Amino acid sequence: MTDTKTKVRRSGGRAARVALRSAPLAEDKRPVRAGLPGGKFKPLSDAEVLRIHHAALDALEQIGLSQAPPSGVAILTRAGAVLGDDGRMRFPRALVEDMLAKAARNITLCGREAKYDLHLTGSNVHFGTAGAAVHVVDLETNTYRDSTAQDLHDAAKITHALDNVHFFQRALVARDVSDNLEMDLNTIYACCAGTTKHIGTSFDDPGHVGPGVELLHRIAGGEAAWRARPFVSNTNCFVVPPMKFAEESCRAMELCIAAGMPVLLLSAGQAGATAPAPIALAIVQAVAECLAGVVYVNAIAPGHPAVFGTWPFVSDLRTGAMSGGSAEQALLTAGCAQMHRFYDIPGGAAAGISDAKLPDMQAGWETGITNVLAGLSGLNMAYEAVGMHASLLGFCMESLVLGDDVIGQVLRTVRGIDVTEDSTSIEAMKAVCLGGPGHYLGSDQTLKLMQTEYIYPTLGNRMSPKEWNEADRPMLLDEAIKRKNEILDKAQIKFDPEFDAAIRKDYNIYFE
Amino acid sequence: MTDTKTKVRRSGGRAARVALRSAPLAEDKRPVRAGLPGGKFKPLSDAEVLRIHHAALDALEQIGLSQAPPSGVAILTRAGAVLGDDGRMRFPRALVEDMLAKAARNITLCGREAKYDLHLTGSNVHFGTAGAAVHVVDLETNTYRDSTAQDLHDAAKITHALDNVHFFQRALVARDVSDNLEMDLNTIYACCAGTTKHIGTSFDDPGHVGPGVELLHRIAGGEAAWRARPFVSNTNCFVVPPMKFAEESCRAMELCIAAGMPVLLLSAGQAGATAPAPIALAIVQAVAECLAGVVYVNAIAPGHPAVFGTWPFVSDLRTGAMSGGSAEQALLTAGCAQMHRFYDIPGGAAAGISDAKLPDMQAGWETGITNVLAGLSGLNMAYEAVGMHASLLGFCMESLVLGDDVIGQVLRTVRGIDVTEDSTSIEAMKAVCLGGPGHYLGSDQTLKLMQTEYIYPTLGNRMSPKEWNEADRPMLLDEAIKRKNEILDKAQIKFDPEFDAAIRKDYNIYFE
Repeated sequence: MTDTKTKVRRSGGRAARVALRSAPLAEDKRPVRAGLPGGKFKPLSDAEVLRIHHAALDALEQIGLSQAPPSGVAILTRAGAVLGDDGRMRFPRALVEDMLAKAARNITLCGREAKYDLHLTGSNVHFGTAGAAVHVVDLETNTYRDSTAQDLHDAAKITHALDNVHFFQRALVARDVSDNLEMDLNTIYACCAGTTKHIGTSFDDPGHVGPGVELLHRIAGGEAAWRARPFVSNTNCFVVPPMKFAEESCRAMELCIAAGMPVLLLSAGQAGATAPAPIALAIVQAVAECLAGVVYVNAIAPGHPAVFGTWPFVSDLRTGAMSGGSAEQALLTAGCAQMHRFYDIPGGAAAGISDAKLPDMQAGWETGITNVLAGLSGLNMAYEAVGMHASLLGFCMESLVLGDDVIGQVLRTVRGIDVTEDSTSIEAMKAVCLGGPGHYLGSDQTLKLMQTEYIYPTLGNRMSPKEWNEADRPMLLDEAIKRKNEILDKAQIKFDPEFDAAIRKDYNIYFE
Repeated sequence: MTDTKTKVRRSGGRAARVALRSAPLAEDKRPVRAGLPGGKFKPLSDAEVLRIHHAALDALEQIGLSQAPPSGVAILTRAGAVLGDDGRMRFPRALVEDMLAKAARNITLCGREAKYDLHLTGSNVHFGTAGAAVHVVDLETNTYRDSTAQDLHDAAKITHALDNVHFFQRALVARDVSDNLEMDLNTIYACCAGTTKHIGTSFDDPGHVGPGVELLHRIAGGEAAWRARPFVSNTNCFVVPPMKFAEESCRAMELCIAAGMPVLLLSAGQAGATAPAPIALAIVQAVAECLAGVVYVNAIAPGHPAVFGTWPFVSDLRTGAMSGGSAEQALLTAGCAQMHRFYDIPGGAAAGISDAKLPDMQAGWETGITNVLAGLSGLNMAYEAVGMHASLLGFCMESLVLGDDVIGQVLRTVRGIDVTEDSTSIEAMKAVCLGGPGHYLGSDQTLKLMQTEYIYPTLGNRMSPKEWNEADRPMLLDEAIKRKNEILDKAQIKFDPEFDAAIRKDYNIYFE
């Protein structure tokens, strides 16, 4: 043993551990990070995956999708799809298989800073926001109020400060912006001004894509820079389940593809309402719809980056209301993740939603269980993973902050158990048991693994009852409010003041 | 379509669904139940399982365990273990393998009512309480107070009313009973008077086993009845990690075995303190210790029912404090469950513990994530799954009630996705899409699956913000307090009044 080691041990105990802990860790040494590979939870057997795949192909061939827009009819029939007399577009299985072969794999969703790039390879998992909440949960009064552009910008700023929230997709609607085009432009700018992580937005109106892309070019510093590293992807609700194209959204998607924007092919059926009640058949329908999207995208631009967005939701069948926090939702999402891996294409789904109205214990178990199944199943993009309440109707800033702790824990389970010669060598046990101190506190191995193998919550409280009492019984939500305010107080707009001023001169910007 | 079906559909919609829902379901139709098979989450590869197994055998052969009591030395050396000059008992691998072959498999832990029997077969999962909390969390004042015999009895009564809590192991210490023998007897009676589910208790003092078993005979209606269906198992902390026998507990275990009592072979090391810091090596040590227990038990009574109790805990390595709610804890427990399956013997571990002091959002994600990994990994017995706070120091009755919802969700994920010809048939999609209503609400399939495929929370709230407002914004913890009180108001002592009176005459019973 070297002198240095002896010294570390002698100075050891709590003080040394706390000192070591306070030194920041290099990115590659952190116990968790974006893109850890998942996939150790497999809700479906290989045969079951195949059964779902074949049923989806059958559905595309026999049922097909109605209401393709004229442009889509041209694109799809040219590729080999067949428009029936009943107006439904049907997809021969050979066409689907050909397009799957052409589909983009191993895509990167860029951040404005390259360190935030998301590499959607294999079963790498990433967690972020998404949604279209129309309320913000106000914890000071325990009430729901209308969401605003300022809220959206604040959520972006908070996300920027959270290690375990890897991208920021529009999570709430800027309801104070009444003009729809202004709303889309404010959405882009509120997100980009808040964080340099990858952004998701959602054009539904094809007429807004042009002005939106113009703004994106300006943010990127020109069209070439934008096309080299498109840092905003577009969510296309290109289908209205069951098995119907959304005409406007399809045309918006065509324009996004032309503009070099990655797309999320989103099928958001609701089992028992707009999707079948059996979990397996809801997956079949979502897969069929997204496969139609894969054909659509690759018929326009082979290999264009697209995320396979099977987002089937769950209905509480007693009332028809949505339940995003249920175990059935967790299974739907995990099953979809397995289908993504079967096709080996980048995929995303919804996880982490709470049905609870407030960040209470129910919110904790709902977001914990659904996110951990998403991660362990190897979902590339877990959307709506943090902050969502009331089955997507409410967004809560404090839940976003607390969600960082939840995802940290989830990612630690995804990282799994390190089993190597070193980590199973009984030499460490011998040193302790055979004439050693009889415990592992302060041993070299313990100190070495303290930061790289264990993750510590930021707000999660691990005090003993005695310590907690002495600290005046801190309440979790008070701490979350405090951290939220600290982040917002320190956060700055992620643009040059001059650039920001120029944008505010040219656009009607609704937030500060 | 028959007339009846048409009628159901016509009368359909919300009213029909709510009416159907209110009819109680036959036990075998419920979406979840005790003993569902888990195992679809595998944190370890087969090679990694083998590596851990071999390291554990090496540890038993090369390090062994110190401090076996004289009776244990006789039992173990007679079986083939070797007592070294250093006082450590070492176990040749052939001995361990022989004893593993003799160990009890497919055991049943009996309830006082047979419908509560736990069949520990394969990867069947069960959730219940356990622990030795010294405080009760009082939600009216948000404070911790000393736990009492009355609390233990109340917790038993509440557990009896909760479908998803499958057994009641002593979860808290009756601190108001100062005499240790009286405490052990009150513990047994408080549990048995509260529920007819399987009970776990813990004799540490060999001198208490005789009087305890006498009480059990009396409850059973004689020794023969007790031995035919022993409804109480004993937790034996037979080791003090690392790799040391606990002499008193070993002698108590010998007596429990003689009395026909199933035992839980409990190894409760703490990674980074009394167990190695690497998760894999902590599992190695726990497995080695429990294998020593398997040898011990089967050397006394081949095939005696024993649960392989690898309960390694986690230290927060910054402070040395325990963290039962961490992701590392979830991994330790899931990894241990996989080792149980490798040996194909009944196993148990800790899951569901919260480090939070109150049933807040942290408590939710901690209990959710750790329990779901326990269930998905196929852990036979998940102990401490509900009610535990402050890393086991506090027990909360309202968390117990809420835990029923958590475990319900967990069990639903364990049940998994039903993939059959029926559940993936696209005929249901055709009926809806091709000239049908265009949605699945109120379809025959939806109505049929409403109760058998979907589980509904009891306290979890799925209202919309509008409904929630109109209901005066109910708070989760208020609802939990209400349900707890309702259960306690209705609960009755699970004995004949005459029998109860006779017991209270002969024993000093501390609860009402």
